[in-house]
Amino acid sequence: MLQVNLSGIQDFAPVETLDYYPTSLAHRALAEHTGEGKEFTGWLNLPERIIQTQLKQLLAGADKIRNQSEVLVVIGIGGSYLGARAGIEMIRSANYNQIKKDTPDIYFAGKSMSPIELAEIIELIGDRDFSVNVVSKSGGTLEPSLAFRFFKAMLEKKYGAQGAKKRIFVTTGSAGALRHIAESDGYDIFDLPDDVGGRYSALSAPGLLPQACAGIDIEKLLNAASSAMQQFSRQSPLNPVWQYATARQQLYRQGRSMEILSCFEPSFHYMGEWWKQLFGESEGKNGVGIFPASLLYSTDLHSLGQYLQDGPRSMIETFVEFRESREDLRIPFEIGDRDSLNYLAGKSLATVNKTVEKAVKSAHISGGVPVISISCDTMDETSYAELVCFFEMSCAISGYILGINPFDQPGVEAYKANMKQLLKSLD
Amino acid sequence: MLQVNLSGIQDFAPVETLDYYPTSLAHRALAEHTGEGKEFTGWLNLPERIIQTQLKQLLAGADKIRNQSEVLVVIGIGGSYLGARAGIEMIRSANYNQIKKDTPDIYFAGKSMSPIELAEIIELIGDRDFSVNVVSKSGGTLEPSLAFRFFKAMLEKKYGAQGAKKRIFVTTGSAGALRHIAESDGYDIFDLPDDVGGRYSALSAPGLLPQACAGIDIEKLLNAASSAMQQFSRQSPLNPVWQYATARQQLYRQGRSMEILSCFEPSFHYMGEWWKQLFGESEGKNGVGIFPASLLYSTDLHSLGQYLQDGPRSMIETFVEFRESREDLRIPFEIGDRDSLNYLAGKSLATVNKTVEKAVKSAHISGGVPVISISCDTMDETSYAELVCFFEMSCAISGYILGINPFDQPGVEAYKANMKQLLKSLD
Repeated sequence: MLQVNLSGIQDFAPVETLDYYPTSLAHRALAEHTGEGKEFTGWLNLPERIIQTQLKQLLAGADKIRNQSEVLVVIGIGGSYLGARAGIEMIRSANYNQIKKDTPDIYFAGKSMSPIELAEIIELIGDRDFSVNVVSKSGGTLEPSLAFRFFKAMLEKKYGAQGAKKRIFVTTGSAGALRHIAESDGYDIFDLPDDVGGRYSALSAPGLLPQACAGIDIEKLLNAASSAMQQFSRQSPLNPVWQYATARQQLYRQGRSMEILSCFEPSFHYMGEWWKQLFGESEGKNGVGIFPASLLYSTDLHSLGQYLQDGPRSMIETFVEFRESREDLRIPFEIGDRDSLNYLAGKSLATVNKTVEKAVKSAHISGGVPVISISCDTMDETSYAELVCFFEMSCAISGYILGINPFDQPGVEAYKANMKQLLKSLD
Repeated sequence: MLQVNLSGIQDFAPVETLDYYPTSLAHRALAEHTGEGKEFTGWLNLPERIIQTQLKQLLAGADKIRNQSEVLVVIGIGGSYLGARAGIEMIRSANYNQIKKDTPDIYFAGKSMSPIELAEIIELIGDRDFSVNVVSKSGGTLEPSLAFRFFKAMLEKKYGAQGAKKRIFVTTGSAGALRHIAESDGYDIFDLPDDVGGRYSALSAPGLLPQACAGIDIEKLLNAASSAMQQFSRQSPLNPVWQYATARQQLYRQGRSMEILSCFEPSFHYMGEWWKQLFGESEGKNGVGIFPASLLYSTDLHSLGQYLQDGPRSMIETFVEFRESREDLRIPFEIGDRDSLNYLAGKSLATVNKTVEKAVKSAHISGGVPVISISCDTMDETSYAELVCFFEMSCAISGYILGINPFDQPGVEAYKANMKQLLKSLD
């Protein structure tokens, strides 16, 4: 079960002085749907809703995709793919496409407009059978819409207009261009609830359909999420969400302007990307917000480690750790001990990795960085579900404490307006 | 040729008011080897030195590795692998291991102590023929040393003690445990000059040997680097290095505490990682330094884009752009135009990508973010060489302007000391 440990902030914001009153008000506004952006709080009971209304359709859709495809192309940007990719990398593998498996390769498209990236995905598909899952709540975002044009044309060329229709799976909201196209062409449609924003949608079709195709047990995942949402809805200072949200906002008020999410598992990379989107897009507005960055250790100890240890004292560091490693290896013995590492021979690499983590935490605390620890059991469906629920709840409550609307993204419109104008004037 | 454009900082630090005097002093201290850390400025003439003394050996080594291996395992952490990986992803492909090619797959190991990561690399190698390039200047860093134990044992099991020796390629400094082992076992050794630190070593064996194995033209790369070093050693405000270093330090003095490196090409990801190490480890000390982060667009427009547009006004944004795309695709026409994108049909995707870049820059400037633009021709050996030389020179000069030693990393020792103690006490 997910736990939070605040002992690493004791020297900076003593735990006994943390003020949970603003947190309690924020949580109540969230739970009672009275806060700003209340029309986008449908993610609070999303796991149960999906179990009751969509799980069967998702499992059947994933079966259909797996049976007819060696490759699945997921088309989406931001919240439309980050949750899925994070789960696949954390639960299955950071090299998912390269490992031996009986599930399709999965490529993520429509997240850039680079012809290099798109041409490469097309080449990687080659002449293999493929299906497409296009994910867009509004159906009007340029990047995925353009990518969908390319892959739809490819499918129609390869399978004919009728054959293509059986290979296009659409995840979208109740209105918009994509909904209209999907209904009139008769594609399989997975509803994206209107009361859930993109970055809070990992526990619905955008996150779940690709994960199910990758062989992840989404029923187990949803059940764990349902329990986690219940655990985290407790209005109490014993709630890990309260502890995390309160601590980070307290440290922010003390001038800590950046939060680093650190993990000693490289396959956590896309969980970090998902987390950055969740917090960055939710809190970064009205001139306020903690800047989210993520690091992977050990490699980043030999990169930003120096800055963390000795640079400006402007950051909070939040570690995500897993109590059990699903793999382990024994360190080999070497005759002669020329590298002087025989004192570790026979030891578990997982234990050594944990030991380094401990060493880093204490070095960073001594160097002046407050450290928050979040721990889960192991890198599986349950921990993924717990982390997603935990961070979503924490982000919403943290945003309300900060006094902003954690569910809108007005700043994203600025470049879109410029873009439309410039694109219209292309000759 | 690499160019810098500062028009995007005009509203924040007018170009005509930039003070190049500290820059000129910093550059002189660097060029005349009179500044702090002067014993580590050997990278200034590294390309020529490598061309004259090591290029042939590198090409022969790469030939040998390619001929005998389906897989190359590069063992290294921080500066010992980031330059190589950045080059392979930018010049060849972000999916290098998955594309069709006549060069070996390349896996990067020794950069974490995760048993999940290590076990997966071992599984991915399977029963294929492989060689190992272990890269460590000191030879004493724990992560690569441990990984080397595993792969050496695997090689010896597979090929016998003698066979293994022909498959181990060592890149190291003139002293230390690894040098000793390599000499006594008779491995191929690639010298790492003692006057070049890890993060400034991309244009020597750590960066070049893996890139040559991946089919990258390292002779072309080194020639471009040699010209670039000459171009950037000009002591003049017309030098792009002076412009970049001066602008970012001026903005830092005005309270800009973070620099975001943004690029519209996803395969630039590891160049961003390399850049973060270079600047974070060089400048983040004595309580000062600009925090480096990197973003990939479009995807991060739907993530940290909101924070950049509307969050605290604490950042500088530096765009790296390529004038020519080495791939392009025409946007398909669609009967009925149900997604309303036919106004773009027939247009080049590369042009659309460029247009979005323009839109984003102007939105961010209007939103209060000073923008620096760095442009290169295309994503090839020449641009890689130019970018590496440009950022190395800029980082060293920027560090001297800031008043720190850009060549040491005292903070990295803090966790190492803790770690040694904790590891020794493992039972």
